[in-house]
Amino acid sequence: MIQERLKKVLKLMEEEKLPQMIISDPSAIFYLTGKWILPGERMLVLYVNLKGNNRLFVNELFPISEDLGVDIIYYNDVQKPVEILSKYVEKDKPMGIDKNWASHFLIKLMELKAGSAFVNASEIIDRVRMCKDEKEKELMRNSSKLNDIAIDRMIKLIPKKYSEKKMGKILSDIWEELGAEGHSFDPIVGYGANAADPHHVMDDSTVKEGDSVVIDIGCKKDSYCSDMTRTVFYKYAPEHSREVYNIVLEANKRGIEKAKAGVRFCDIDAAARDYITEKGYGKYFTHRLGHSIGIEDHDFGDVSSANTDVVQPGQIFSIEPGIYIPGEVGVRIEDLVIANEDGCEVLNHYPKDLMIVE
Amino acid sequence: MIQERLKKVLKLMEEEKLPQMIISDPSAIFYLTGKWILPGERMLVLYVNLKGNNRLFVNELFPISEDLGVDIIYYNDVQKPVEILSKYVEKDKPMGIDKNWASHFLIKLMELKAGSAFVNASEIIDRVRMCKDEKEKELMRNSSKLNDIAIDRMIKLIPKKYSEKKMGKILSDIWEELGAEGHSFDPIVGYGANAADPHHVMDDSTVKEGDSVVIDIGCKKDSYCSDMTRTVFYKYAPEHSREVYNIVLEANKRGIEKAKAGVRFCDIDAAARDYITEKGYGKYFTHRLGHSIGIEDHDFGDVSSANTDVVQPGQIFSIEPGIYIPGEVGVRIEDLVIANEDGCEVLNHYPKDLMIVE
Ligand SMILES: [Mn+2]
Ligand SMILES: [Mn+2]
Repeated sequence: MIQERLKKVLKLMEEEKLPQMIISDPSAIFYLTGKWILPGERMLVLYVNLKGNNRLFVNELFPISEDLGVDIIYYNDVQKPVEILSKYVEKDKPMGIDKNWASHFLIKLMELKAGSAFVNASEIIDRVRMCKDEKEKELMRNSSKLNDIAIDRMIKLIPKKYSEKKMGKILSDIWEELGAEGHSFDPIVGYGANAADPHHVMDDSTVKEGDSVVIDIGCKKDSYCSDMTRTVFYKYAPEHSREVYNIVLEANKRGIEKAKAGVRFCDIDAAARDYITEKGYGKYFTHRLGHSIGIEDHDFGDVSSANTDVVQPGQIFSIEPGIYIPGEVGVRIEDLVIANEDGCEVLNHYPKDLMIVE
Repeated sequence: MIQERLKKVLKLMEEEKLPQMIISDPSAIFYLTGKWILPGERMLVLYVNLKGNNRLFVNELFPISEDLGVDIIYYNDVQKPVEILSKYVEKDKPMGIDKNWASHFLIKLMELKAGSAFVNASEIIDRVRMCKDEKEKELMRNSSKLNDIAIDRMIKLIPKKYSEKKMGKILSDIWEELGAEGHSFDPIVGYGANAADPHHVMDDSTVKEGDSVVIDIGCKKDSYCSDMTRTVFYKYAPEHSREVYNIVLEANKRGIEKAKAGVRFCDIDAAARDYITEKGYGKYFTHRLGHSIGIEDHDFGDVSSANTDVVQPGQIFSIEPGIYIPGEVGVRIEDLVIANEDGCEVLNHYPKDLMIVE
């Protein structure tokens, strides 16, 4: 267990008067132990208790050779893991549950009455994870450095007129060559009308003159994610597309300008969104401004009108306004920032002034 | 909604006296509607009610253009989807919950008292899905046909001495060329000692003379999965490896021999396992004999000593005994079968007698 991280979790548990909790997310377990365990459908639980009798429950198909500093309880495929888990918990006290734990485990735990109440306690670990320590910040910078290199290569490939899918494959090779573990999320390369769909899945489309090209990519490097979007134009940019581009760029800059510790996430969202709305394109900006990022591409906490939380120093999140005019043009410009007391550090250094690729 | 499938679900709900249930698994929703919706962390729920007022709850970021024959309720990122869902349910009646629904949704639904009890009801839909209809059987045969072609190409590549990782990449290209959607699971190509780890993740290892080579691969074709394992030897097979191979082969044949409607899954497992145990290798066969398969590589229902369910006609599952002697040799031989009244139809036709690749 990484003691300073565990201590922060225990401190929040104490504040919330939560005596025990179940952590099931492999990324949270990696955060606390330094070890990836990916058991698929099989139960994986790190049980944390204020009294310190922590246990890691793992299927014996995934043996752990390292000393993780926590007792490991192995079970096998013919045993009932939730029953085994229930023997180690304090049944007369409330139990915190991790947000994405499969419901069938929770229902079984409830049937076994293995707690006096069951509450969603993910925020405890998620809020600790939101504020990156110095080691994490360095890993995030490294991951984004690779992303700067990769997006440059991708943009230079546009004149080859590869299909979107082919571009995605080339990107896999680029990550490997750069020593990254791979994509941090399904990348998007969208040409023309496809760029106007913020959740487009890459297909066999090829680029046409005048198209906007949205490239939204990121890698995992040493388990930490990068995520950046640039939009460029092929051969020329139609007048209306230019207008849209420059509005999105200004919204991106206003979001970054606003991002600092002490400001509410919703106010950062508003800084970008209000500008787009003023310019008459509010209804074409169909998603939140951004999301937290770290070990997962989408860490806990979003930059949206609904999030009234106040930004803390060390939080890392995306600023990614977009305008999507169906069938015509799509533009998104995304950067990652680390918030600090004075403002923020932008992790992406690839230029973002309107660029025409010849 | 595909009416004959929905009818089977409603019939089981009636038998179980379950008036309403939440289906959240995208593959189950595809099974019932013919439409893949992949909303990631965002709530996706098909609410099914015996009275027929079914509803599909989807984030508006994933608009559905087809008529699915069910009313769609869209919500957006600033709304609370579980609260919206709770307005459509019968709060004074028990509610079925899908097994992998994220716990935070369930905890919220319970806080809203949106049911008189909450039970894991996945088996209702999972048991319907276990028995494949004629259309599904045909799709499963097609997917396995591609797997027969792919494994032949992979085995012929062994003399090129590519790394395991490189073999995995080539397989991606093979699936694309064959018109499949891609891997149905992370493929395994394991050389030598790596072959002796049943959950080995492919790395930069290359093949050595005398190695066993475990190749466990499958594709998705028209949303249905294939899954086959063959083990071959490079240049020569050491005496002990030959012995192990032939024991696994006989266990595979005994499992297939036993597989038919009316037999218990645990007895199929035993048919293979008892033979391996008799031969003195029981402790090296460290996993269940097999798993159901269909839209998902691991469908509900396993072929294990713990599963006393009786096989029904139309069920499709794997028979995959293995012996793993750490550091020395690993052998697994896997076929898929469709159970019928008289026995079973084996979907894989690639030979399985001991093969030396020169
Ligand atoms: Mn992003
Ligand atoms: Mn299998």
